[in-house]
Amino acid sequence: MNRFRRSRVNILSLLCVAISFAFIQLAVAQESTTPNHRVRLVIHGGAGTITKASMTAEKEKQYYEKLTEALEAGYAVLQKHGTSLDAVETVIRILEDSPLFNAGKGAVFTHEGTNELDASIMDGKTLRAGAVAAVKHVKNPIGLARLVMEKSPHVMLVGDGAEAFGKSQGVEMVPQEYFFTQRRWDQLQTAIEKEKQDSIKKVKGTPADSAEGRHGTVGCVALDEYGNLAAGTSTGGTTNKRFGRVGDSPIIGAGTYANNATCAVSCTGDGEYFIRAVAAHSVSMLMESSGMTVQKAAEKAIETIGRIHGTGGLIALDKNGNFTMPFNTEGMYRGYIDENGKPMVKIYKE
Amino acid sequence: MNRFRRSRVNILSLLCVAISFAFIQLAVAQESTTPNHRVRLVIHGGAGTITKASMTAEKEKQYYEKLTEALEAGYAVLQKHGTSLDAVETVIRILEDSPLFNAGKGAVFTHEGTNELDASIMDGKTLRAGAVAAVKHVKNPIGLARLVMEKSPHVMLVGDGAEAFGKSQGVEMVPQEYFFTQRRWDQLQTAIEKEKQDSIKKVKGTPADSAEGRHGTVGCVALDEYGNLAAGTSTGGTTNKRFGRVGDSPIIGAGTYANNATCAVSCTGDGEYFIRAVAAHSVSMLMESSGMTVQKAAEKAIETIGRIHGTGGLIALDKNGNFTMPFNTEGMYRGYIDENGKPMVKIYKE
Repeated sequence: MNRFRRSRVNILSLLCVAISFAFIQLAVAQESTTPNHRVRLVIHGGAGTITKASMTAEKEKQYYEKLTEALEAGYAVLQKHGTSLDAVETVIRILEDSPLFNAGKGAVFTHEGTNELDASIMDGKTLRAGAVAAVKHVKNPIGLARLVMEKSPHVMLVGDGAEAFGKSQGVEMVPQEYFFTQRRWDQLQTAIEKEKQDSIKKVKGTPADSAEGRHGTVGCVALDEYGNLAAGTSTGGTTNKRFGRVGDSPIIGAGTYANNATCAVSCTGDGEYFIRAVAAHSVSMLMESSGMTVQKAAEKAIETIGRIHGTGGLIALDKNGNFTMPFNTEGMYRGYIDENGKPMVKIYKE
Repeated sequence: MNRFRRSRVNILSLLCVAISFAFIQLAVAQESTTPNHRVRLVIHGGAGTITKASMTAEKEKQYYEKLTEALEAGYAVLQKHGTSLDAVETVIRILEDSPLFNAGKGAVFTHEGTNELDASIMDGKTLRAGAVAAVKHVKNPIGLARLVMEKSPHVMLVGDGAEAFGKSQGVEMVPQEYFFTQRRWDQLQTAIEKEKQDSIKKVKGTPADSAEGRHGTVGCVALDEYGNLAAGTSTGGTTNKRFGRVGDSPIIGAGTYANNATCAVSCTGDGEYFIRAVAAHSVSMLMESSGMTVQKAAEKAIETIGRIHGTGGLIALDKNGNFTMPFNTEGMYRGYIDENGKPMVKIYKE
């Protein structure tokens, strides 16, 4: 009887130890930051009238190289256990610093011959977001958008106020001359000349007046090893824009959206149409409410843009690493890191 | 045989006449502008810490009277075969011209002691939209937003550029002094004083720093006899706002959205949270994709706002005239025209 009692006590003790061990394991697992997701990175450098015929070999090479450089830099962040937000910012800073894209250094000119930049970023984990619009002296608007998200209680800051916030945060400021590139200046002159010729025929400043230089917005979506999605977009807007025009890029829901429950999205194209369609958010909602795949939802969003006569494209990445890059233009600068960790860049239709 | 032939010809002739008549009827029906929808009008004047205890009888009376006046004016537009866009603009102009609401005349002050106004409007029939942000001298920002929609190829204009466009369109401009009201000035002084006291404890300018004067945005949704929905929102933003802060009111998808396929929505509350939740558009998408009623979809949108710790409310009206006015604050200035054409105004929780 005594032996029986002892063995029962032993069994109970063992059970207690086992349960405690299980709880400790559970706690460790919850605190763990062990990678349990494939990292993913997808980028774009704008959609538009981009055809093989309109491209020189030299220009094509420059785009391939810069998009590859951005992809590799962003992927390196993710591989070193960085966050999707860090990867998105890293990628967009590289594209902003290149004169090839209509963002940062390569921003197009306004009607007045100035450069006014917009950008936004969103964190899929917390749904926090930051955006800046109509800034003129900020070297990397994407960095400022991130500071708005992380160092202010706000989501969107515009104009001089946004710049004052940037200065208070030690953001790198540049004179307007920094944004001068001959190519963009020539595009403005062409647009103004075309507008003069068209002035009798139609309303000034319609998007169709400045087809050249309308596109070139840059964007990035990423999924990090912690399973967190992020999205960012940066642009110089449209050539010959007037009146403090702001497009979809700094509008959360229109040009940029990220939500761990669904996907991360960055858009490029006729900003006005992407705002009216609330394009980026619609991809997320179509996944959430209709149970569509990211591919199907993104295609439907681009269809909607087409139906209201807008053009452009988007990149969308879901929480499981599935992604898509639909567009209804002739081409879209775009790229991703493939299954083997190699950067893949595309420009034209498949 | 002859008689039989004749009767067959007669029957055929009659059939042709009948078919022709049917086609004519159909054509007439298509061209008809006969009212086939009940008109609807719903408005809000902001959600927030509005309790019976904090209200004087005099103040309460002023709110009831002004909201009633706005409802009656908007309803008169709809009864005279006006469009939902006209009704929305009419209503919001009246609320903007009153010192009671945080929009137009009664706009709150920025940290610098200026007034910066935002507004947006959207046409549910065409999905066209117009918005202005950070304008300082426009008497009725809702009117300027409508001109952006109708007289420019753009959706959103900000700051000085938006004002330049307004001037080019002959919009009524006012000096900043027009927006001075003692009540709002005192709210700014209180907010600045509170911020000083709190500065050691927390980050400056968090929304919680300026609870007084955070709310009071105005909005309107309408359904006209042609079955077209429209939505509009106008605000002075938040007391003591800095750095060109822009909230949800001028953001299509966040503070304002209209789509004949689903509903028209105008929001009020912590703008940052409504942007992050893309609140107005989410109501529409929940109806479209999940088949929810406007009531259920709007409640879910406010639940989402609550889940990310935001406060506020919204008004939403569907294409069949069903509407809802949910909020998660103590009160919301709100009203509608009831089944008998009578204006109904409410302030507190039911």
